[in-house]
Amino acid sequence: MTHGRFITLEGGEGAGKTTLAKALAAGLQARGLETLITREPGGTPNAEALRHLLVEGETGRWSPLAETLLLYAARADHVERLIKPALEAGTWVICDRFSDSTRAYQGAAGGLAAERIAQIDAACLDGFGPDLTFMVDLDPELGLERTRTRGEDATRFERQPGAFHHALRQAFLEIANADPDRCVILDGSQSPDIVFERALMAIQDRLEVPA
Amino acid sequence: MTHGRFITLEGGEGAGKTTLAKALAAGLQARGLETLITREPGGTPNAEALRHLLVEGETGRWSPLAETLLLYAARADHVERLIKPALEAGTWVICDRFSDSTRAYQGAAGGLAAERIAQIDAACLDGFGPDLTFMVDLDPELGLERTRTRGEDATRFERQPGAFHHALRQAFLEIANADPDRCVILDGSQSPDIVFERALMAIQDRLEVPA
Repeated sequence: MTHGRFITLEGGEGAGKTTLAKALAAGLQARGLETLITREPGGTPNAEALRHLLVEGETGRWSPLAETLLLYAARADHVERLIKPALEAGTWVICDRFSDSTRAYQGAAGGLAAERIAQIDAACLDGFGPDLTFMVDLDPELGLERTRTRGEDATRFERQPGAFHHALRQAFLEIANADPDRCVILDGSQSPDIVFERALMAIQDRLEVPA
Repeated sequence: MTHGRFITLEGGEGAGKTTLAKALAAGLQARGLETLITREPGGTPNAEALRHLLVEGETGRWSPLAETLLLYAARADHVERLIKPALEAGTWVICDRFSDSTRAYQGAAGGLAAERIAQIDAACLDGFGPDLTFMVDLDPELGLERTRTRGEDATRFERQPGAFHHALRQAFLEIANADPDRCVILDGSQSPDIVFERALMAIQDRLEVPA
């Protein structure tokens, strides 16, 4: 059986990752592939329990370091128990947020040194990571406006000030620019159909999907 | 103000760490020192929340890797918010379990490679660690018998088979033997008074306490 591929979606709040994940799963299924949509933090019962600890409470509840370690505990569980078994069974896994979000949120925007995140990532994942990452780029004001008009309660991250969200956007772009073999930047201000078409083209170019 | 000292107590279940911690705190207070007794996993509200996740559920709930990351998330919170501020205020901190327990439980007995724990420890603590560690050594059968006669419910760790507890004992002894400047092995089969006297003598020898 052919091994599945691991695709991650990254970007700020309201950039359109959830919509894109659903469209990509449907598009890949239409090409005969098994797909699985998952998300971080979360994806397994243990990781979802940690998600509750992470998203609840005051903005400063966890230091960026403690937060990073919690995120990697959740990630270890998610990778070992859901993502790797699915990939080994031939399933294509589409994951809403992964290590790049830790680099952007806790690292660039949160102030934890990139080398410390890299050390934890290496100890935890031992080189495992996505085959392809979409950075869905959007002006943070537009993104947060979208989450508000959806009527969602603000999470601990959404309540951060504007400068935080601008640092985040910049961080995602820098990660993508530094690793162009893995990362594709998508313009999240386009319509969902166009974002999806561009993403699907990139998958076909890079990951050899049946047409 | 003089900086406090950081003393950790390590060993298997029922070895007498809790009794020793209380006796040492009283002994140091009698010599005019401020003391704080704390424990891991736990010691701060965030770390206690993680303790619940760690000690509850099935024996295999968390992989040794996920468990290690959770323990270090709790440890980061504990060190940043309780231990370091106390030490800086001149308080002597006595902590029931610290990094050596992760090395023994998740590493030697749990099967996670020592180098991965060392990587996570370095990323998390950046060299911070105890000034003095007491390894309270006891035959695991005797230790588990003590916890049973105290009427305690078996934790997820106590329900592990005998071979696990023997591996644990061996691991603590090896850690102590490899780092004699920091570690002192105490015979936990002796009476609590004798264990305390030996510990206090070691503190006076090594950490310059007022007599």
